[in-house]
Amino acid sequence: MYDIHGLNEECGLFGIWNHTESAHLTYMGLQSLQHRGQEGAGIVCSNGQNLIGERGLGLLTEALSQQDLATFQGYQHAIGHVRYATSGNKGIENIQPFLYHFYDMSVGVCHNGNLINAQSLRKELEQQGAIFHSSSDTEVIMHLIRRSKQPTFESALTESLCTIKGGFTFALLTKDALYGAVDPNAIRPLVVGKLQTGEYVIASETCAIDVLGGEFVRDIHAGEYVVINDDGIRVESYTTETTTAISAMEYIYFARPDSTIAGKNVHAVRKMSGKRLAEESPVEDADMVIGVPNSSLSAATGYAEAMNLPYEMGLIKNQYVARTFIQPTQELREQGVRVKLSAVKDIVHGKNIVMVDDSIVRGTTSKRIVRLLKDAGAKSVHVRIASPEFMFPSFYGIDVSTTAELISANKSPEEIKDYIEAESLAYLSVDGLIESIGIDEDVPYHGLCVESFTGDYPAGLYDYEERYFASLSERQKAFLAQNTQYFDKAGNQYV
Amino acid sequence: MYDIHGLNEECGLFGIWNHTESAHLTYMGLQSLQHRGQEGAGIVCSNGQNLIGERGLGLLTEALSQQDLATFQGYQHAIGHVRYATSGNKGIENIQPFLYHFYDMSVGVCHNGNLINAQSLRKELEQQGAIFHSSSDTEVIMHLIRRSKQPTFESALTESLCTIKGGFTFALLTKDALYGAVDPNAIRPLVVGKLQTGEYVIASETCAIDVLGGEFVRDIHAGEYVVINDDGIRVESYTTETTTAISAMEYIYFARPDSTIAGKNVHAVRKMSGKRLAEESPVEDADMVIGVPNSSLSAATGYAEAMNLPYEMGLIKNQYVARTFIQPTQELREQGVRVKLSAVKDIVHGKNIVMVDDSIVRGTTSKRIVRLLKDAGAKSVHVRIASPEFMFPSFYGIDVSTTAELISANKSPEEIKDYIEAESLAYLSVDGLIESIGIDEDVPYHGLCVESFTGDYPAGLYDYEERYFASLSERQKAFLAQNTQYFDKAGNQYV
Amino acid sequence: MYDIHGLNEECGLFGIWNHTESAHLTYMGLQSLQHRGQEGAGIVCSNGQNLIGERGLGLLTEALSQQDLATFQGYQHAIGHVRYATSGNKGIENIQPFLYHFYDMSVGVCHNGNLINAQSLRKELEQQGAIFHSSSDTEVIMHLIRRSKQPTFESALTESLCTIKGGFTFALLTKDALYGAVDPNAIRPLVVGKLQTGEYVIASETCAIDVLGGEFVRDIHAGEYVVINDDGIRVESYTTETTTAISAMEYIYFARPDSTIAGKNVHAVRKMSGKRLAEESPVEDADMVIGVPNSSLSAATGYAEAMNLPYEMGLIKNQYVARTFIQPTQELREQGVRVKLSAVKDIVHGKNIVMVDDSIVRGTTSKRIVRLLKDAGAKSVHVRIASPEFMFPSFYGIDVSTTAELISANKSPEEIKDYIEAESLAYLSVDGLIESIGIDEDVPYHGLCVESFTGDYPAGLYDYEERYFASLSERQKAFLAQNTQYFDKAGNQYV
Amino acid sequence: MYDIHGLNEECGLFGIWNHTESAHLTYMGLQSLQHRGQEGAGIVCSNGQNLIGERGLGLLTEALSQQDLATFQGYQHAIGHVRYATSGNKGIENIQPFLYHFYDMSVGVCHNGNLINAQSLRKELEQQGAIFHSSSDTEVIMHLIRRSKQPTFESALTESLCTIKGGFTFALLTKDALYGAVDPNAIRPLVVGKLQTGEYVIASETCAIDVLGGEFVRDIHAGEYVVINDDGIRVESYTTETTTAISAMEYIYFARPDSTIAGKNVHAVRKMSGKRLAEESPVEDADMVIGVPNSSLSAATGYAEAMNLPYEMGLIKNQYVARTFIQPTQELREQGVRVKLSAVKDIVHGKNIVMVDDSIVRGTTSKRIVRLLKDAGAKSVHVRIASPEFMFPSFYGIDVSTTAELISANKSPEEIKDYIEAESLAYLSVDGLIESIGIDEDVPYHGLCVESFTGDYPAGLYDYEERYFASLSERQKAFLAQNTQYFDKAGNQYV
Repeated sequence: MYDIHGLNEECGLFGIWNHTESAHLTYMGLQSLQHRGQEGAGIVCSNGQNLIGERGLGLLTEALSQQDLATFQGYQHAIGHVRYATSGNKGIENIQPFLYHFYDMSVGVCHNGNLINAQSLRKELEQQGAIFHSSSDTEVIMHLIRRSKQPTFESALTESLCTIKGGFTFALLTKDALYGAVDPNAIRPLVVGKLQTGEYVIASETCAIDVLGGEFVRDIHAGEYVVINDDGIRVESYTTETTTAISAMEYIYFARPDSTIAGKNVHAVRKMSGKRLAEESPVEDADMVIGVPNSSLSAATGYAEAMNLPYEMGLIKNQYVARTFIQPTQELREQGVRVKLSAVKDIVHGKNIVMVDDSIVRGTTSKRIVRLLKDAGAKSVHVRIASPEFMFPSFYGIDVSTTAELISANKSPEEIKDYIEAESLAYLSVDGLIESIGIDEDVPYHGLCVESFTGDYPAGLYDYEERYFASLSERQKAFLAQNTQYFDKAGNQYV
Repeated sequence: MYDIHGLNEECGLFGIWNHTESAHLTYMGLQSLQHRGQEGAGIVCSNGQNLIGERGLGLLTEALSQQDLATFQGYQHAIGHVRYATSGNKGIENIQPFLYHFYDMSVGVCHNGNLINAQSLRKELEQQGAIFHSSSDTEVIMHLIRRSKQPTFESALTESLCTIKGGFTFALLTKDALYGAVDPNAIRPLVVGKLQTGEYVIASETCAIDVLGGEFVRDIHAGEYVVINDDGIRVESYTTETTTAISAMEYIYFARPDSTIAGKNVHAVRKMSGKRLAEESPVEDADMVIGVPNSSLSAATGYAEAMNLPYEMGLIKNQYVARTFIQPTQELREQGVRVKLSAVKDIVHGKNIVMVDDSIVRGTTSKRIVRLLKDAGAKSVHVRIASPEFMFPSFYGIDVSTTAELISANKSPEEIKDYIEAESLAYLSVDGLIESIGIDEDVPYHGLCVESFTGDYPAGLYDYEERYFASLSERQKAFLAQNTQYFDKAGNQYV
Repeated sequence: MYDIHGLNEECGLFGIWNHTESAHLTYMGLQSLQHRGQEGAGIVCSNGQNLIGERGLGLLTEALSQQDLATFQGYQHAIGHVRYATSGNKGIENIQPFLYHFYDMSVGVCHNGNLINAQSLRKELEQQGAIFHSSSDTEVIMHLIRRSKQPTFESALTESLCTIKGGFTFALLTKDALYGAVDPNAIRPLVVGKLQTGEYVIASETCAIDVLGGEFVRDIHAGEYVVINDDGIRVESYTTETTTAISAMEYIYFARPDSTIAGKNVHAVRKMSGKRLAEESPVEDADMVIGVPNSSLSAATGYAEAMNLPYEMGLIKNQYVARTFIQPTQELREQGVRVKLSAVKDIVHGKNIVMVDDSIVRGTTSKRIVRLLKDAGAKSVHVRIASPEFMFPSFYGIDVSTTAELISANKSPEEIKDYIEAESLAYLSVDGLIESIGIDEDVPYHGLCVESFTGDYPAGLYDYEERYFASLSERQKAFLAQNTQYFDKAGNQYV
Repeated sequence: MYDIHGLNEECGLFGIWNHTESAHLTYMGLQSLQHRGQEGAGIVCSNGQNLIGERGLGLLTEALSQQDLATFQGYQHAIGHVRYATSGNKGIENIQPFLYHFYDMSVGVCHNGNLINAQSLRKELEQQGAIFHSSSDTEVIMHLIRRSKQPTFESALTESLCTIKGGFTFALLTKDALYGAVDPNAIRPLVVGKLQTGEYVIASETCAIDVLGGEFVRDIHAGEYVVINDDGIRVESYTTETTTAISAMEYIYFARPDSTIAGKNVHAVRKMSGKRLAEESPVEDADMVIGVPNSSLSAATGYAEAMNLPYEMGLIKNQYVARTFIQPTQELREQGVRVKLSAVKDIVHGKNIVMVDDSIVRGTTSKRIVRLLKDAGAKSVHVRIASPEFMFPSFYGIDVSTTAELISANKSPEEIKDYIEAESLAYLSVDGLIESIGIDEDVPYHGLCVESFTGDYPAGLYDYEERYFASLSERQKAFLAQNTQYFDKAGNQYV
């Protein structure tokens, strides 16, 4: 239910080298990544000499017209971006890719994730005379590259990648090459694919490769970057200080079910998490299992199969409603919820229901859905969450960066159950999550970033540190004190 | 899969009487009916004295702005419309509701379905000096009403309803009342609901009532119309020559799964049809069942449950892609298909698959989806269609009115199986469909209109008759000759 | 100053037959007629078989795009329209040409002027079952034509032209011919031109012919219509009851200075009226003459030449400001006036000024301009109006149809002089106006319609009669009683 | 005729401090400066704490909506800009004012004119790591300010103003003050005004002060800048190396006739130049004088008065046509000219005409107008140009920077006369121009910049030098060799 409860990955990236229809393929690739950002989109293309770009607000179809694509005729290299914008940063000037024209070169750049030391870097750079034109973190890396004393663009890029911190991926385009880079923990994903006609593409998710009929080549791993140019493809490491910690959130609700991250298909992971959830927290006397569309449907079918219960379409999501008007009255606002999501009376009436959702952030959405079901006549609603309690903010590219938003920062499952007026409530365990995903690297959490469930931040906190510690709730503090298994003696991430 | 294979109900209607937020509620009601038409929308409101209206092209959110709604402040009665437009009729002048201002009254009118004698009525009216301003059938009824010698608007309306033929529903608004009317076979649906605060609404589907938190009151039956005014609600019959024949297509793919038509929930009907399909045409050695999103998912879960097979998300529909650009090359066009719908490699690779779809019209979409699955590595694809062979055109409000479009008009299941390159292909039987829906009226087909499967047209053919008989294929003729059970001796509909 | 004081001709017409670039030429012709209407524009084209049209709101450049014109490729016949809309009728449904598709033919129609019996005709037609789709008078003629029992379109048209009353011109297009018609008094103008390549055009003003490099052929006279088709051109009379009475307002401010009406160039007429005004009402001790831009500049140069005074640019009109925002405060509203028109301090400071304007309708604009000049330091302002007192409403296509708007209906020149705070005020005499225009037909007022200055309505009053007589002011009544020279004994127009 | 022949001032500036309606007044001020740029507009406002801005493409009314202005409610300080864009730089990112948000302050900045060392400064800055986001010169000054080691914003600004070269004015807004600056030659104008309510404004022309009912306070002179803040107003010099050289082009056609520059009203100057032209180059046997609208009308009336000839409106400019479509055929393109400008047949037919224009740049427009007049029947056309031969490119803010565009760079008046097919052609002398303007400073050309007529560039050439000398034509070289009076022995500007 990522489109309702306000958890949002910040962006989707795509890049392609040397295809006569580079802009059209980028457009298609971005369409398959549209779930990663609906507030704006853009494409920058190169013909090996010049770089040109177009960008716009809204969904891809609103942001870029067929006429825009026509201007790219004859440009065979491209990068593209779809963007999720946090409130207050919605101007066109923040829409990526950014395109920079210098006296000696042109560069297109776009970015996914969050730089946690951007603010301090920005201030430092401004004190040296740098001028920023957007509120986006993405500009920081361009300034670092241009101020680097390194002799080549590539060496300046690697130097800059070592300076920035957080969870991020970048795509950059010059007249000479296409670059893709991943943070030292591989928190945010980036993959390489190859089209049937031999050209290489990079993308935030494998679904963008599939859409083009291409083949998956490899993930870009922690601390790596890829260079694609007329000589072919080359993957390098810009740092050796890496620890794989892939965002578990990508599996839980960001990524498309047909994408595969680190070898694990997202739908399969979700279905498995539903099965595991059934094992951990069965509901004995239920009549059916329903999932909250769309991101929880896989988990719900897993739960239903494991429990041998019917899986029913008890909630319908209106596929046409992306946005709704601000309604003038409270009555209308409540009805507005039903416009987006409605309970199917004839299915749920008089029934004992297991409602599977992917997560609970603020709790308001869950409360609303339980109410929908009960208004439609459900006898009981047992809520099962296919991820652990969301207790800690994320700073690595998810739009949940304050404790105040998180109901689990302050309330126990029992209290939340009461708040959302469910008959019962249970979460998947952290181990259950890790095992359902099934990555088996010999690093903490077997290669996952589960910071929101454990308070263990693999890439550190930097500019957010002070604010984070100042805002810890009593429940969060107690959790950290009790769950020392997540940390070594120095309070660092458990190995 | 109504959004891909070109089968389209023509419209959705909504009406409300005496609510201070009539325009906002109509907007919400129309949002829940958006699946019935995405080419245009409009609202006409009355304050008991004047009628005013707004309309526009595109999705509701594009057609009507919040500012448009604001102009309706203080107007407590409303009708609204979402429209599916056939090619060539896309101008704003065809967007409904139509609003007529006469010297003695004003009328808003909108319409769902198709009048099969509109062309001859129109010519007749024009010969008498009538002037039409759109290519829409809807104008015909207004001319009939205005030329009627009947003393009241209501009697002129009933007279006019007796003159027009086909499958239709109408909503009309005057300063004095809201009217809703249904054709003499109830081919197209119309329901009455009641809000918690006591106001009455009418709508094409019950989901529009649910969205407003209202209660279902009743279906408007064949040959009935409803009048809602300050005195309350009243249902009348304008003709006694009625035979219930509800369009089976509404259950098969038009209606939303959460709607209930004639007491039968659409999702439940579809699930049941999937189960019945499993009984009639099981696939023995399959690994999983997948549905073609979105309209076939219910049937697929039914098939899976009946066969005790896993139900998997093997095909993903991109929820953001309503329209795609015309692609300049064949290669791009083929990739364009994958943008809308993609197969999940990690799910289907190496598997024997049952692919459940709601219908096959031209066969091109089915062929494409089978190909998608096989390209993704499926070992075998067994196609199961949750409705009978679509052999005959429809003239009652579905956009399939020529034999040439229908693959089943010319090819047997065996031939189609080869064409779509599936391992096997089977359809639900006509009896299976009728029993899955489960309406049990003592009339032909137990109260359903199954003309596309039997060639039996309950409301006749009128203006289409000549063209229909002239274009019958050999296979259609043979079917009609063999299946005399569908007709009585006079060649009329079997009772 | 037609763009400020609210006197507005209602429309401009154009038509062309048999030119491969008919739509482009119509567009250019309409551009030259843009001063006759800025609220909407449209074009209807025919290829000899089909008629198609495009229309839109706003200036021509806003209403019709280059892409719209491209759709007319291959259509060699066209009519076009620019429209002035009175408040409350601004919807797209009122934008002309109207395009009607009947079972037996298609017709495009557009109209300039005002039908004074439209309301009663409309009611009569509606009582017979007719349905109107706009609030425009133009539809009336289409209904009359379609209901006519006449055997041909042309005879039905002439019958209909005899039924309607007022000041009007029409352009109609069928697949067979282009028609242009003029009212029985020739109140509104219509001319025929011939392009260098031999094709005929019709237009509201000669400037539209000049723009295309064509030659003026002839005026369409009172009660005439022209038919242009593949056989050539033919002018006919639909009635013999005609009296030429060309609207003097066309010369005073509607028409473009480069247009010629009835053989008299508009600029030359205005300059002559300025000279005559100088003879009738000289200002002895003035330092300079200034005109109110743009429509009074010709008259001002005439006045200056006759008085041998310098003609100066003492008022500047902002050529970019068509519309201004509604300003939130009174202070801003007053400054808004200066945005449109500003006095040139360095020209007018300390000077005695003759300010020439074309007319005074409400008086508010004149008051404002005198104030502008005095604020800029003018020592004295002597206002000279190049037309007589505007005492009576017009019903023949000028947007001044109520007595209440007319300052001269209630105030004498002396009172108005005080109101506008000028040092002196004088008007051109009715004879001076008639002689300046110089048409010398042996009919009342030598062939002019001067109803607003004399109360003598050559085409009668019809639907307006009751309202007109009920609202006559004391000053109007006194004028009518004294100026019996304008009427014969029966109170009819003086011959 | 600045809107046809491609001579364009680059921009208009406006600024206001401490008025509750600052945005509305800026909007009005910009409307009066719209003639200085129609390709884009913007406003930046401050409430003493934050700066916010809006900008858009097109005319002011297209670029900024009433809703945009509403967002500035409560912001009492503002700067605004209208922009003329040279081809290829039409993106929104070049629309000013630019608004920069730094960690320590925010700055709004806009600019009129051209920096002739911008290219070299830009390269130098980029080599130091600076990143530019537009192709506009305006960014350069912001980078200079931010990199300055000066302790205050004001001292950094003055340092930066000393670094840039050319003809320019700047308006800058911080939360503390409004700044306006003028180049060391005062080539481009900037004035200070005071509203009746006491607030100060700055503007490119006095007409923007008049529009607000304010009083002219003073010109900002060469090398000066003004600071307006809560303490009042203060004018400072940032350099003592100044020589007044006001662009003569401002008088000839850029500025509005009602503006006053350096104490000289533009209309009066133009009228005087027409009189002087009559003295220098009378036409003996002419019937009338006509001006090319709009910028040559003042000069034409001056010529007419001096010769005691009638001043006639022989050419009409279509006030509604800002832009025209690209016409598909040569025939249509030629007719397109007449849409913008048409000759009045009834005025000019059979007449000997003096046609006064402000300048000849490429000659194509003059040729076209002479043709228009002759096609309309003119017997002879004597062209009189109210400025000297336009022989040399301008680099100080006029869009004529290549020799290739200038017909006078290669052709003598006699040759041009033949080219444009006029009966005679004469230009105003350089002395005649200087004396008509009448500034009487004791500096070269009495304080004017007449580089385009003399090849004498008061602010030097810098980045343009090489290109300029490489492209000198034979005629230009000969002129420079003969007219040594314009230079001292070192080849520098004559004192």
